[in-house]
Amino acid sequence: MEKPKLPNVPRDPQADYATAAVAARHDLCERVAGLPLPYLAGAPVPSELAKGNIENMIGYAQVPVGIAGPLLVHTSRGTREVYVPMATTEGAMVASYSRGMRLLSLAGGARAQVTAEALSQHPVLVYAAADGALKAAEKARVLAERFATITSEITRHGRFLRVEPQVIGRRLILRLLFATGDAVGINMAARAADLCSAALARETGALERHVHGQDVEKRSNTRALVEGRGRSVIADVTVPRAHVEERLRTTPEALAAIMRTYATGYAQMATHNWLVQSANGLSAVMLACGQDVAYVTESANGFLDLEVTSAGDLYAAVTLPSLLVGTVGGGSGKGTANECLAVLGCQGEGHANTFAEILAATVLAGDLSLMGAFCANEFVAAHERLGRNRPT
Amino acid sequence: MEKPKLPNVPRDPQADYATAAVAARHDLCERVAGLPLPYLAGAPVPSELAKGNIENMIGYAQVPVGIAGPLLVHTSRGTREVYVPMATTEGAMVASYSRGMRLLSLAGGARAQVTAEALSQHPVLVYAAADGALKAAEKARVLAERFATITSEITRHGRFLRVEPQVIGRRLILRLLFATGDAVGINMAARAADLCSAALARETGALERHVHGQDVEKRSNTRALVEGRGRSVIADVTVPRAHVEERLRTTPEALAAIMRTYATGYAQMATHNWLVQSANGLSAVMLACGQDVAYVTESANGFLDLEVTSAGDLYAAVTLPSLLVGTVGGGSGKGTANECLAVLGCQGEGHANTFAEILAATVLAGDLSLMGAFCANEFVAAHERLGRNRPT
Amino acid sequence: MEKPKLPNVPRDPQADYATAAVAARHDLCERVAGLPLPYLAGAPVPSELAKGNIENMIGYAQVPVGIAGPLLVHTSRGTREVYVPMATTEGAMVASYSRGMRLLSLAGGARAQVTAEALSQHPVLVYAAADGALKAAEKARVLAERFATITSEITRHGRFLRVEPQVIGRRLILRLLFATGDAVGINMAARAADLCSAALARETGALERHVHGQDVEKRSNTRALVEGRGRSVIADVTVPRAHVEERLRTTPEALAAIMRTYATGYAQMATHNWLVQSANGLSAVMLACGQDVAYVTESANGFLDLEVTSAGDLYAAVTLPSLLVGTVGGGSGKGTANECLAVLGCQGEGHANTFAEILAATVLAGDLSLMGAFCANEFVAAHERLGRNRPT
Amino acid sequence: MEKPKLPNVPRDPQADYATAAVAARHDLCERVAGLPLPYLAGAPVPSELAKGNIENMIGYAQVPVGIAGPLLVHTSRGTREVYVPMATTEGAMVASYSRGMRLLSLAGGARAQVTAEALSQHPVLVYAAADGALKAAEKARVLAERFATITSEITRHGRFLRVEPQVIGRRLILRLLFATGDAVGINMAARAADLCSAALARETGALERHVHGQDVEKRSNTRALVEGRGRSVIADVTVPRAHVEERLRTTPEALAAIMRTYATGYAQMATHNWLVQSANGLSAVMLACGQDVAYVTESANGFLDLEVTSAGDLYAAVTLPSLLVGTVGGGSGKGTANECLAVLGCQGEGHANTFAEILAATVLAGDLSLMGAFCANEFVAAHERLGRNRPT
Repeated sequence: MEKPKLPNVPRDPQADYATAAVAARHDLCERVAGLPLPYLAGAPVPSELAKGNIENMIGYAQVPVGIAGPLLVHTSRGTREVYVPMATTEGAMVASYSRGMRLLSLAGGARAQVTAEALSQHPVLVYAAADGALKAAEKARVLAERFATITSEITRHGRFLRVEPQVIGRRLILRLLFATGDAVGINMAARAADLCSAALARETGALERHVHGQDVEKRSNTRALVEGRGRSVIADVTVPRAHVEERLRTTPEALAAIMRTYATGYAQMATHNWLVQSANGLSAVMLACGQDVAYVTESANGFLDLEVTSAGDLYAAVTLPSLLVGTVGGGSGKGTANECLAVLGCQGEGHANTFAEILAATVLAGDLSLMGAFCANEFVAAHERLGRNRPT
Repeated sequence: MEKPKLPNVPRDPQADYATAAVAARHDLCERVAGLPLPYLAGAPVPSELAKGNIENMIGYAQVPVGIAGPLLVHTSRGTREVYVPMATTEGAMVASYSRGMRLLSLAGGARAQVTAEALSQHPVLVYAAADGALKAAEKARVLAERFATITSEITRHGRFLRVEPQVIGRRLILRLLFATGDAVGINMAARAADLCSAALARETGALERHVHGQDVEKRSNTRALVEGRGRSVIADVTVPRAHVEERLRTTPEALAAIMRTYATGYAQMATHNWLVQSANGLSAVMLACGQDVAYVTESANGFLDLEVTSAGDLYAAVTLPSLLVGTVGGGSGKGTANECLAVLGCQGEGHANTFAEILAATVLAGDLSLMGAFCANEFVAAHERLGRNRPT
Repeated sequence: MEKPKLPNVPRDPQADYATAAVAARHDLCERVAGLPLPYLAGAPVPSELAKGNIENMIGYAQVPVGIAGPLLVHTSRGTREVYVPMATTEGAMVASYSRGMRLLSLAGGARAQVTAEALSQHPVLVYAAADGALKAAEKARVLAERFATITSEITRHGRFLRVEPQVIGRRLILRLLFATGDAVGINMAARAADLCSAALARETGALERHVHGQDVEKRSNTRALVEGRGRSVIADVTVPRAHVEERLRTTPEALAAIMRTYATGYAQMATHNWLVQSANGLSAVMLACGQDVAYVTESANGFLDLEVTSAGDLYAAVTLPSLLVGTVGGGSGKGTANECLAVLGCQGEGHANTFAEILAATVLAGDLSLMGAFCANEFVAAHERLGRNRPT
Repeated sequence: MEKPKLPNVPRDPQADYATAAVAARHDLCERVAGLPLPYLAGAPVPSELAKGNIENMIGYAQVPVGIAGPLLVHTSRGTREVYVPMATTEGAMVASYSRGMRLLSLAGGARAQVTAEALSQHPVLVYAAADGALKAAEKARVLAERFATITSEITRHGRFLRVEPQVIGRRLILRLLFATGDAVGINMAARAADLCSAALARETGALERHVHGQDVEKRSNTRALVEGRGRSVIADVTVPRAHVEERLRTTPEALAAIMRTYATGYAQMATHNWLVQSANGLSAVMLACGQDVAYVTESANGFLDLEVTSAGDLYAAVTLPSLLVGTVGGGSGKGTANECLAVLGCQGEGHANTFAEILAATVLAGDLSLMGAFCANEFVAAHERLGRNRPT
């Protein structure tokens, strides 16, 4: 396992928000990215660049960006060491993620792996009775090849994977699954779903057709939890006991034990998000990197494991079944988003899975750090020290 | 009911992303806000201003902001007509919300009302057995006045409301409710929860204490759906049939009917978000206005009603049980966030409920518009026309 | 469509619980069953017959059995007309189901269809890290044929269908699916799951193995709602408007409209049971027919459709994704259970799907009847008249 | 803590289902009950006795009853030692519960406590718009005293507790809570809810009124999980390590650890039942004791705790938030049901809470036993040995 090489993020205890301190970190990011990052430094992004991303434009919102890290992560395309840009106004958050990332580095780095890729769409076709819907479900299976052709005619990047029809009463839920390359791919998939469902509706005489009839999009739901959606990712790490004790000031046993209380709490609430602060880290990196932050509703769901190994070390894992991110399309290729992806080495084609894996490792870092703080009862104190902006 | 007065948002069909068109709209916003909005126009926000909101700062992310509207809404503090700033890179979204807002204006404006305010915290105390937890639950009720005092000592804005203890096995879930004024108030409430739970733990000999033991924060959950959290808001409107037919090119009956298919789809997924695109609108306005977008995971949950009145018109309502927003604290008071809140007339103290009501009306506009588009099968086509940035 | 032939259930308005009236109905059941039904008539079932079904036996509980119907249903094996035995002590329930069944008969009978059969088991294997679990998931797919062989060696009736491994953190959820013939098949499937998971654990060096690790059994859950479990069944009917008006004293429109209110209520509760009184009918028939009533927790979940057709009639459907019943094994083949199955023409091998379809049609009848009563505001009144046993 | 006094249940290894062995146990039950139990012994219950409990009666279903125990439990009305009658055809189940009960006795008995009593009803009133519903919600609070009077006029046993109105869109969910004495009380509560909601509807001009509009009845749902319904009960015990090792052939650590795997499994399924086999024990005792087994859908939900104490012993707890049982009304007072309640010392008035506490302790016994078996990998083997009735 290769050694971490990136330096710690430079800080100026006296004037960390002064131009010089900010510029020093910005310079470091430029060196890492291998290209200039003018927009992050304050150069106004030209309004013309926003074409296709917004209507009735009046300018740009400016959201502070900090870097957490360095994060050492063993991805499915090799080991990466990166600074992770996070856009947020929640004081103490970047510091919390950084602390977790240092722990991951000490442990030899997080491992992360995209385990599935499939963007689902669920048009609904309505028939006169259940019998019609059931026959249409069979027909849908027969038409799989046609669906593949239809999809290939409207997209170069996307690909039809398979159809899994289900029937509820007289409604056929036409579950369609697509590979979407390095994009989230929702527009492409929606277009294909429209054409595929229209073809099936024609052949089967559907009374109604609703392209988005089972609207899985941008909402917490158990389909995604069970079946996955977008990219499914796991990140994990084994942290030697000594590092847990030294860095988190707690023990593997205490971390494993606290999960029991959290599980009881989550169970009563019937939540689909069994992580601790996934929504924080994901929304901050997604925002920095030009992702659609509305997807955090789906993406933040998943599972956290904190367990003691037989050797007395800490095993920690984050499972994100439905992470919806891309390095192509949407807001990802322009302005500061493009620059932040460059800092991560994840601009454009060929990088979406790596980006997803870095995100999962980031969530792992944040949950380790926060659970450690909870264990050590440091949480409230840390917020008092770092977050000075809120009213009391 | 007063007449709408704000002009339509000016657009330049030839060059709508050119400096001139953007500046024209920016000027309009400055007139509405009654103050200059330099940061939205591209003046770099000083890095010092981000102090307390971020660590390891490297600069600012720039996210395109457009305005939807005008939105006419009858709030609990009187009628407002506003342009709603939305920060997003999802093409077609601002246009979709604008379309819905025009419909609301034609219908005489949306009505919106905050129906409850209470930020919950759920420390968990663990005892040797259920009996100890049950006795501590009784003690917690006795200590309510002390909790109020404890809270008043650490905050001017927040106020202890009540305690509702619950016991699961040997764990006491100490549900504490706080009024938080115009802030989300999470840091204040967490601090108070820490002190209150510590006081109870001391008096009752708890074995363990977890300040965030039932972690309701930033996750979709049914507690919030049933009990509310933060601000609970309802926005509704009755739209005359003629406007539905003319503007949405569909009928009240078709809109009511489509809900049946959506309900079946949502039911199977066990989602807590029974709206259509709440996550889109909320995340865009929250981002523009310096809110913590991680809260969209909780805030986007709720209910949509689309029904036919006895007179044949459309009744539409949005219920958001757990909207977590504020006009004080966090990132709300600085830079472009402050400017966007000024555009809404919602800067600073005294405006959080109005802001919440505008948000609910915005969600109503977006869901009406999108459901109308789904009914009229226009959705995919609209995306093709406006959103030109995605890969195919 | 053939005509209904069975007579109405004879009632004696003066003395309906007297021996004569009960005997008259019992005689009718014997004629229908084509064999004597002594145990239902009060002959004590020999205790020896309970061997294998109970321990520490002290006797038999006696639960009143009434018959609802006749029910006319078009099953996947032809049209059936049956009286449905229900064991319950809830006054008014059999009458409510009977009323619904009369409506189904008037409408030409319900249609019912088993749409899927697969009993799932989910052993969990734990590895040192996610990587091990992911490799084991691949290995599981490779071993599918071996799993089939293992299963065939321990059962004649059951059959391995497929394996669908999933990974959460370092845990492999080994989803195994079995066909179970006319039995519920849980013991056989559990045995096969034990052997299959043991084989995989050996080959992959699992640290821990939990045969029932994801315990889907006898609990309401969304896996079953989305994927189905046991037998998935749909029953539906189109009821002419005149019959709705005459028999239910309401309209198709009112029935469709009331669903909107119920949907809102169900959504807030995040229930998995979107029917009205499925638990009533299922538990009563399951109890009469020797099924394991603990399965009503899973079986009662599903969906109800009540909609107006373009011709102004009522379309009604019941979808039960996870009905766990059998006509072989458990308590089904003995004593009064065997007699009740005989009344249904569903004893023993070859009849489980028909039994499931009759159950779904029964649920449809009950939900139609109760929703009709709710629409007509007759519910409380009916209970007052028939159920005379409760304290006030 | 008083010593256990009841003898072990007598078994005849040679002929345990023969008349003599069954009669010996039946005799023991008669001695415990202090009265003859003829119906359990096979005397046919007169059909007239079923009046008010069933329609179209044809006879009685006979379901085998066995006794588990003795169970030693410290209830809120003193220590009880009882044999628990269970009606089931699932071989091995009574034996499993008995094993758990022996463990509880060794540990000095389970503690059990009803922690809340409130039967909820949720009529829904629909208004023209949200504003009307919100005003009606305020009016409902004002009318609380009238609701109490209305309730007192129709029932001696029931009592109005409080009203907690909620608004979703234009719908008022009129949450009404009732104390129901020793009955489940659903008919009484439904009647009161009808009258109370009618009174409110008249005063507020509701457009629609649905007495069962939010239908919480007989379905798994999160309202009950969070708020409780019927009787909420906790049963717990601390089992010395030596007994865990000797009787369950596992360790407290192994039992605590296995919960982690189960929690992951439950979380993915979004189940509301976090116990292991609650549905088994509850349905069996409820069936024996004349309860409405359809309520097992609600009653079986809840939480299981298995944890290691600081002294290395096992702490185990069962929390049942929504147990719907009674010792008065329904089928509880007649025939074999009455006899089984007599065996428990829980016939009639004054005993419902004790019955509920015995049920919770029973669930605790069953879950301890089964989890112990899972830990020791004995589950499949035990079924092979005892359950001989199923097809393979």
